Amino acid sequence: LKLICSKEMGLDPNVTRYLKRIERALIVSIPIMMDDGSLQIYEGYRVRHSTVRGPGKGGIRFAPNVNLDEVKALATWMTWKCSLLKLPLGGAKGGVCVNPRELSKKELEKLTRRYASAIINIIGPDIDIPAPDVNTNAQIMAWIMDTYSMNKGRAVPGVVTGKPIEIGGSVGRNSATGRGLYFIIDAMCEKLNIKLESQTIIVQGFGNVGGWIARLLYERGCKILAVSDISGGLHYSEGLEIDKLLKWTQQGNYLKDYNDKRYNLI
Amino acid sequence: LKLICSKEMGLDPNVTRYLKRIERALIVSIPIMMDDGSLQIYEGYRVRHSTVRGPGKGGIRFAPNVNLDEVKALATWMTWKCSLLKLPLGGAKGGVCVNPRELSKKELEKLTRRYASAIINIIGPDIDIPAPDVNTNAQIMAWIMDTYSMNKGRAVPGVVTGKPIEIGGSVGRNSATGRGLYFIIDAMCEKLNIKLESQTIIVQGFGNVGGWIARLLYERGCKILAVSDISGGLHYSEGLEIDKLLKWTQQGNYLKDYNDKRYNLI
Amino acid sequence: LKLICSKEMGLDPNVTRYLKRIERALIVSIPIMMDDGSLQIYEGYRVRHSTVRGPGKGGIRFAPNVNLDEVKALATWMTWKCSLLKLPLGGAKGGVCVNPRELSKKELEKLTRRYASAIINIIGPDIDIPAPDVNTNAQIMAWIMDTYSMNKGRAVPGVVTGKPIEIGGSVGRNSATGRGLYFIIDAMCEKLNIKLESQTIIVQGFGNVGGWIARLLYERGCKILAVSDISGGLHYSEGLEIDKLLKWTQQGNYLKDYNDKRYNLI
Amino acid sequence: LKLICSKEMGLDPNVTRYLKRIERALIVSIPIMMDDGSLQIYEGYRVRHSTVRGPGKGGIRFAPNVNLDEVKALATWMTWKCSLLKLPLGGAKGGVCVNPRELSKKELEKLTRRYASAIINIIGPDIDIPAPDVNTNAQIMAWIMDTYSMNKGRAVPGVVTGKPIEIGGSVGRNSATGRGLYFIIDAMCEKLNIKLESQTIIVQGFGNVGGWIARLLYERGCKILAVSDISGGLHYSEGLEIDKLLKWTQQGNYLKDYNDKRYNLI
Amino acid sequence: LKLICSKEMGLDPNVTRYLKRIERALIVSIPIMMDDGSLQIYEGYRVRHSTVRGPGKGGIRFAPNVNLDEVKALATWMTWKCSLLKLPLGGAKGGVCVNPRELSKKELEKLTRRYASAIINIIGPDIDIPAPDVNTNAQIMAWIMDTYSMNKGRAVPGVVTGKPIEIGGSVGRNSATGRGLYFIIDAMCEKLNIKLESQTIIVQGFGNVGGWIARLLYERGCKILAVSDISGGLHYSEGLEIDKLLKWTQQGNYLKDYNDKRYNLI
Amino acid sequence: LKLICSKEMGLDPNVTRYLKRIERALIVSIPIMMDDGSLQIYEGYRVRHSTVRGPGKGGIRFAPNVNLDEVKALATWMTWKCSLLKLPLGGAKGGVCVNPRELSKKELEKLTRRYASAIINIIGPDIDIPAPDVNTNAQIMAWIMDTYSMNKGRAVPGVVTGKPIEIGGSVGRNSATGRGLYFIIDAMCEKLNIKLESQTIIVQGFGNVGGWIARLLYERGCKILAVSDISGGLHYSEGLEIDKLLKWTQQGNYLKDYNDKRYNLI
Repeated sequence: LKLICSKEMGLDPNVTRYLKRIERALIVSIPIMMDDGSLQIYEGYRVRHSTVRGPGKGGIRFAPNVNLDEVKALATWMTWKCSLLKLPLGGAKGGVCVNPRELSKKELEKLTRRYASAIINIIGPDIDIPAPDVNTNAQIMAWIMDTYSMNKGRAVPGVVTGKPIEIGGSVGRNSATGRGLYFIIDAMCEKLNIKLESQTIIVQGFGNVGGWIARLLYERGCKILAVSDISGGLHYSEGLEIDKLLKWTQQGNYLKDYNDKRYNLI
Repeated sequence: LKLICSKEMGLDPNVTRYLKRIERALIVSIPIMMDDGSLQIYEGYRVRHSTVRGPGKGGIRFAPNVNLDEVKALATWMTWKCSLLKLPLGGAKGGVCVNPRELSKKELEKLTRRYASAIINIIGPDIDIPAPDVNTNAQIMAWIMDTYSMNKGRAVPGVVTGKPIEIGGSVGRNSATGRGLYFIIDAMCEKLNIKLESQTIIVQGFGNVGGWIARLLYERGCKILAVSDISGGLHYSEGLEIDKLLKWTQQGNYLKDYNDKRYNLI
Repeated sequence: LKLICSKEMGLDPNVTRYLKRIERALIVSIPIMMDDGSLQIYEGYRVRHSTVRGPGKGGIRFAPNVNLDEVKALATWMTWKCSLLKLPLGGAKGGVCVNPRELSKKELEKLTRRYASAIINIIGPDIDIPAPDVNTNAQIMAWIMDTYSMNKGRAVPGVVTGKPIEIGGSVGRNSATGRGLYFIIDAMCEKLNIKLESQTIIVQGFGNVGGWIARLLYERGCKILAVSDISGGLHYSEGLEIDKLLKWTQQGNYLKDYNDKRYNLI
Repeated sequence: LKLICSKEMGLDPNVTRYLKRIERALIVSIPIMMDDGSLQIYEGYRVRHSTVRGPGKGGIRFAPNVNLDEVKALATWMTWKCSLLKLPLGGAKGGVCVNPRELSKKELEKLTRRYASAIINIIGPDIDIPAPDVNTNAQIMAWIMDTYSMNKGRAVPGVVTGKPIEIGGSVGRNSATGRGLYFIIDAMCEKLNIKLESQTIIVQGFGNVGGWIARLLYERGCKILAVSDISGGLHYSEGLEIDKLLKWTQQGNYLKDYNDKRYNLI
Repeated sequence: LKLICSKEMGLDPNVTRYLKRIERALIVSIPIMMDDGSLQIYEGYRVRHSTVRGPGKGGIRFAPNVNLDEVKALATWMTWKCSLLKLPLGGAKGGVCVNPRELSKKELEKLTRRYASAIINIIGPDIDIPAPDVNTNAQIMAWIMDTYSMNKGRAVPGVVTGKPIEIGGSVGRNSATGRGLYFIIDAMCEKLNIKLESQTIIVQGFGNVGGWIARLLYERGCKILAVSDISGGLHYSEGLEIDKLLKWTQQGNYLKDYNDKRYNLI
Repeated sequence: LKLICSKEMGLDPNVTRYLKRIERALIVSIPIMMDDGSLQIYEGYRVRHSTVRGPGKGGIRFAPNVNLDEVKALATWMTWKCSLLKLPLGGAKGGVCVNPRELSKKELEKLTRRYASAIINIIGPDIDIPAPDVNTNAQIMAWIMDTYSMNKGRAVPGVVTGKPIEIGGSVGRNSATGRGLYFIIDAMCEKLNIKLESQTIIVQGFGNVGGWIARLLYERGCKILAVSDISGGLHYSEGLEIDKLLKWTQQGNYLKDYNDKRYNLI
């Protein structure tokens, strides 16, 4: 597919060949002294696909199925995403092969700080700027920023995006992906001469992206027929009350445990 | 095997677990503008198994079958080798997946310099010190040293070993591996009460290691019955004239083309 | 008091305990070859109370009664002041125990440059940014900036605030403290429904702060009944002519020597 | 006293005045999350008296009565000690005001690493080189070296002396102070024409210094009448068996608990 | 002349004396392996006249008659030009004594990169920022930026101005000098009460400056009677069609070869 | 001449061409506030002829006739001198165009420190190491070392040779040039079968080189017929008493003022 794109775009074959490869990939071992005194060693990655257009940009994910090939592919996507928006940023991605749900908070902090230490020479505001991704959040970005800043001897907020607002994060970042999607839907409807308010909607996923798009479409007046999360889904032909569902899930509950007789569990 | 060793040595299981993993591996793409104007991209590696005992130490090989797993294994060996000799050095290794025989000298220089550039932040006299290995030699070390030195703005001879003597290389390094082997054979014979001079010898390989061990044993008075290189082998039951064979091969010839009717080609 | 504040604010006791301590204090000896050839050694300080919210920020004072405890307290205030205004800055302060009036200009320059040299590794645009304070001014900031810039090999205007406008200082900084006070008085009067123009005013101090607030209130139309400086004060029930008094003191004169028969010396 | 010395030595008064002051003192707060989850903040110091003759040199002590004045005095002594031996080293000293016996090993490691982090910019092989002192040992030096090395990205054994031999410490350092004392006693006896072997000896203190001097004199043939440690002392007019006592105390026992009916507890 | 200016401006004689000298000049040898295998060595310069007002700013020219004195003079002009516009920049200039028309593109790239390497420690976004000048263009700036960025390990677009727009250059820079001249002519006409549109114009030079001023005045409605380039000039009393001439020359043609019978070759 | 040498040595013409050029030359302005308050600006140089064999090495001279061409030539000589002795050092030289006898000691210190500041980025233990030369001595080296060390924040004795012994200078350096000459004369006499002790000698120059060679030959038993310094010469056919003459000149006196009726002033 990428090759076809390249041809369509009239890219020099040398450039195509170059873009098919990642600039560099770093694999690191992350030994952690667990709460029970044993030593576990996790494998982490940070891949830079291209920094021709600027510092690398891309998230860090913590998941049990993270591997080098996945991270390479995601880093490649970041190059294309950033350049489509003409951002002066390249593409990068990172990850640790770990199930963070099995770690205590202390272990998670240790893992994050050791990983940050291991990649400290290849990240930085001018080089490569991590961000949250699957299973990583503002807290984890704060640990990375702190580890990096301790090493440099001064606060370096520019080393990560997606950090808590209190230490320099951007207001609105939390809803940004969902809101962006909403803008696209809105613009598309306008272009297609469809009235967005009168559409019925099904949303798959109810977290940081799905939850926000559901909320924004619900507030716009759309009827949300069904939503789903990892536990299952809810359906109601008259339209779900998204505001109440969001309160429920934000308290750490699953959709399937939501108690409203009108709704069908699917 | 390594696990058995560890148990024999009474290593803490945490240490064993730690030693089974490499500290870090860097994979880099090395784009080279070939003499014909096309762009080729090679993949290079530099792996550090352990730097607990000191800076990483280990060669760089250029070969078509180099891959990450091989380099990881070789880096691990370097840790064990250095620590057996109580050297304040850790274990590392590097390589590029390329057949250097297919490159012109200009292309080889470009490849070497670009690879050196790509790993420049993870090598250095205090961090990790490359050396020659399969298909790499003093000239290639000189290019690496020059690339590194240009970057630092001053000559840094300590960044590689195995460089030419003129720019700070060690006298005797060329024969060191073969001579070391000779010392071991000599010591073993003494221990076993065998008279080394009266032994008959067959040497497999006739390059930097095999050639030197053949020469040293020949000078000691041993009868060398057979030697071989990539082209084949020579056998003579009265003992080969190693000094003449070495002159022949040092002129770039193969053993199989050596012209002495007494010798059997094998 | 601070403890009460903390409790009122509902601060975590660990945070309170942390905020009661300074992060770091540096004490330095500043040997100066005096104009008479003798060596005098002065003691200087630079204290960082907290850099959690950003680089340290705080003035440097030259005064005979400067001591470590005072500087610590002032650095602590800076943290609170900066965070009340939500500035991305922490709290710091510095000082030298010296009476600058007893130094020649050359000695003062030497003292300033030697002090700047001694603290050079703990100040900087990203770390800790000094500013003028008691007995230090734009000229002294220029010396600090020059000493720092010479060390870095390039002009670094961001290392101090309060420098001369010609080398990057901010326009309006001179009057900023007085003008800020004026804004507060103005806002307070509005809130209290008092007409500021019809108030009578007494101003204690007639320098960088008192002089400016007197001028601004005088220009607003207030009657300034009395002003004072280190020499004494002047009183006139019909209202002093502040513009003339300022011209007088700006020429280096004291208020007590101002010659206007209508005014009472107090 | 020092003034008298200076006069005797014919020092320039400017030099005397300079030597009476320390170059710089850094005071740092060391917040530690204790095992019970509370936050304790300790105060640490690192003082450089003089680096005119080379990098600072001096121990780090952990004790509840450590304070800035003590550390300043000890740093001054180090300058004099190093220069008497014409070592190219200056004088420095550090300490943390803490009772290490009240800390768990984890807390002690955290304290050491945080203290090392806090002084990281003012120590180093070319600047100031810490060493063990009261309540600090090879383990603590190893933590400091590791913290420093992590920050630099490579092993820096030169940042501390007194580290474990395995990571670059000097053989014989453990006994060096006691052995030095022994050499002095030996040389003095020779000078005074006293036969050392026939002397009777009392040793106060039985640790790293006292234990070694007792052992060395005992091995020389002297009769050791009494020794003491923090728990009390032992006396035996026929001479104590020092080798057995050392085995006892090296197992962590006190002298007062040693069970030998011939010995008097004092 | 400069002395007269200084007097008119009331400059302190010390300042005048200071401004008459350049801060520093670096002369470098630039050895290049030519396409024919021979080694040619060129001489290059980079001069900083003054960095009192900010980082040095000034072009790099490649020309056979470049010499140190010329570069010094041009660097001095840059200081005056930047300070007249109150830019926070100082004055600098560089050059290589070479006829770039005699080099192949590969040789030109080698020359540029080697020159950039040789001056790499005295240029930079905070120190001294080169720009295109005689015979240097966006491509050459890109090579300088790439050489500098490779050395720093990250893209540093701020090291040169006049680079291609794709890698961070400024839109409109190409026409900036000509357009600035046009603004001046326009403003002058307005001040002198002359109607610009009705003027007849002769333009000497038809490249980056002359071509643009001709185009802008032509578009404004002026009659351009004559233009000239290195090959000669064209004259037409009814006014030349500048748009067509520009197309012609932009294809790499000379004015003298333009084929229009109405025009006189001069 | 050099070309002839190169041919004799069979040097590659490319290498010859390379050796005929200096690597780099830095020209700096050194503004000094004189004791009378005026500003004088001196011109200084530091030239590196070649650093292929190691860091540059070469003296710094202060003299009124110093110019760029002289310094270039001297730097070139240093390359040849160092490589003849197979030292791992290249060739460099520096100088300031000033008559140091016209400066007060304070002005001389200012000049030296400002010059050292101006060349601070191109000297260093690994890059280029200055030494005393005409009109520069151990004191001036100490100022350079101090300026450099202040900039680096730690004592860097390796930045200059020829510094005072107290701060790391080499014992015997003072007499080294003269003693070297003496060794050569001695060896030559032995080779020519001449008895050195029975020779008569005339020495031109009576400073650091001439004074030492005169002393060493005098102590060997040679008859020194005549010596000379800048003031003139002394002759005595029975042989001068060199030890007394040295005492005289070491007190700052000229030879021509020496009062011994037996000696002829020449």
